[in-house]
Amino acid sequence: MKITILGCHSATPTVSQHPTAQVLEMKGHLFLIDCGEGTQTQLRKYRIKFSRIKHIFISHLHGDHFFGLPGLISTFLLLGREAELHIYGPKGIKEAILLLLKLGKTYTNYPLYFHELEDTSSQMIFEDEKVSVETIPLDHRIYTNGFLFKEKPDDRKLNVEEARKLNIDLSYYNKIKQGFDVENKDGKLIANKDITFDPPPTKSYAYCSDTAYNPQMVPQIENTTVLYHESTFLEEHHHLCDKTKHSTAKEAAVIAKKAKVETLILGHYSGRYGNLELFRKEAQEVFENVELAEDGKHFSF
Amino acid sequence: MKITILGCHSATPTVSQHPTAQVLEMKGHLFLIDCGEGTQTQLRKYRIKFSRIKHIFISHLHGDHFFGLPGLISTFLLLGREAELHIYGPKGIKEAILLLLKLGKTYTNYPLYFHELEDTSSQMIFEDEKVSVETIPLDHRIYTNGFLFKEKPDDRKLNVEEARKLNIDLSYYNKIKQGFDVENKDGKLIANKDITFDPPPTKSYAYCSDTAYNPQMVPQIENTTVLYHESTFLEEHHHLCDKTKHSTAKEAAVIAKKAKVETLILGHYSGRYGNLELFRKEAQEVFENVELAEDGKHFSF
Repeated sequence: MKITILGCHSATPTVSQHPTAQVLEMKGHLFLIDCGEGTQTQLRKYRIKFSRIKHIFISHLHGDHFFGLPGLISTFLLLGREAELHIYGPKGIKEAILLLLKLGKTYTNYPLYFHELEDTSSQMIFEDEKVSVETIPLDHRIYTNGFLFKEKPDDRKLNVEEARKLNIDLSYYNKIKQGFDVENKDGKLIANKDITFDPPPTKSYAYCSDTAYNPQMVPQIENTTVLYHESTFLEEHHHLCDKTKHSTAKEAAVIAKKAKVETLILGHYSGRYGNLELFRKEAQEVFENVELAEDGKHFSF
Repeated sequence: MKITILGCHSATPTVSQHPTAQVLEMKGHLFLIDCGEGTQTQLRKYRIKFSRIKHIFISHLHGDHFFGLPGLISTFLLLGREAELHIYGPKGIKEAILLLLKLGKTYTNYPLYFHELEDTSSQMIFEDEKVSVETIPLDHRIYTNGFLFKEKPDDRKLNVEEARKLNIDLSYYNKIKQGFDVENKDGKLIANKDITFDPPPTKSYAYCSDTAYNPQMVPQIENTTVLYHESTFLEEHHHLCDKTKHSTAKEAAVIAKKAKVETLILGHYSGRYGNLELFRKEAQEVFENVELAEDGKHFSF
């Protein structure tokens, strides 16, 4: 599981501070999460192949999370894309994108599907054999979802040596990997656990931005491998959270601790802070394993 | 008259090639012309004060000329702008911008005026004491206007020495600068031309992008100081102009020559060309005084 931060700053972009966008690589998928202005340029800068992106998840319709989407969709068109593109985002996103394309008499040459969200409870919005994606309802000024990406377990690993020793026919090997007990050539039932190893543990990624402190999400994200949680402010500016519906680094850490996640990544920093290490320091008073998002940074788990 | 090129490349932005946007400084005004994705970042990079921009002119509604506008408008809001903002662009631009703001429950705290264009003949769209702006109808795949910015002449310069010598009362000096003949203290009528100098010649700027070769614009832009004319292609790719409704460097030069402009600036280059000097070379076979737009380049006239 790899995460590339394309932008992790709040509100207005500057030359060195890009608005929110990130790419999650999970089981062969390349998921784009949020798409602030300039995301297509950041994708080019970090050499992420456009054609590998088939699913884009938009948390909410504030500009710093989606004003890069019309340009990205148009660029896909100009580059002659043929592959499907699926966009998951709040109701209204389809109308906005289609209006912009229509004004430019620009029509996609590839299948473009919108999956509009309006539920306020968690929904499974994508699932295949390898991963699932659920919404995480968040508490922001407008309708906002986080996203929980979960790997599904791989097949069990066959202990070939043991299977031979126990005289099991080759033709059963696939069934064994799927978890079945099987009979050996002598008609004896062999327990699956005696001839397999556990697959590697599955990983999961919870993306939560933008949101006020929202402990209601804790049960859903419990034991998540990595939690990306916004930390727009430090505690010294906690009074700004009520109005803006954002969180502090400490609040992000409290969520991480309650949910017993392995790693917390902080991001969506307000432009008022010069030193991002202050975010880590504040969060680590509550939760040890804290990473700081930075534009262009890669994380592997 | 100063022009700052923020972006001069066609279609899809890259890390080093920005889509169309430029700033024209004329008689104290700072006009933003077109606003491709990333324009707000380019404005910051070249230290152009946001608050000085009060008029934005959008040629047409292709993404590479206006997908930076929603973000710029939102940023003005976040920065607490209070000054009026006037946007001139094709019909539909208001609906698009207001929809995007509405989806984000973002409302401007400053007066935002849209001046929607749909005429196919030239219109005067802005005028004050110092400058005027007219549309230049262009020939592109969708409804597109260029813009002709013209300085108005300054007052005539008073020849103080001569005025004293001719015994003219001080109270007439303002009238003289405005071009009137006046009586001197002896009751004799003094011709204005005897006591004034001509003001500096006025300057003008014609912005023409995007457009196919369109000699119909020539009478309107005759004797313009500077013509910015798109040159998406070189003649070797002339066959692409018909379908895309763009021009070659040579065609831009033919327009410049016919219109007897002083300087031609080329821009809106297709990404297929590595060496921009080829554009200058091709154009100079027709018209001598050719400049190449480059992102971040300033021109003073």
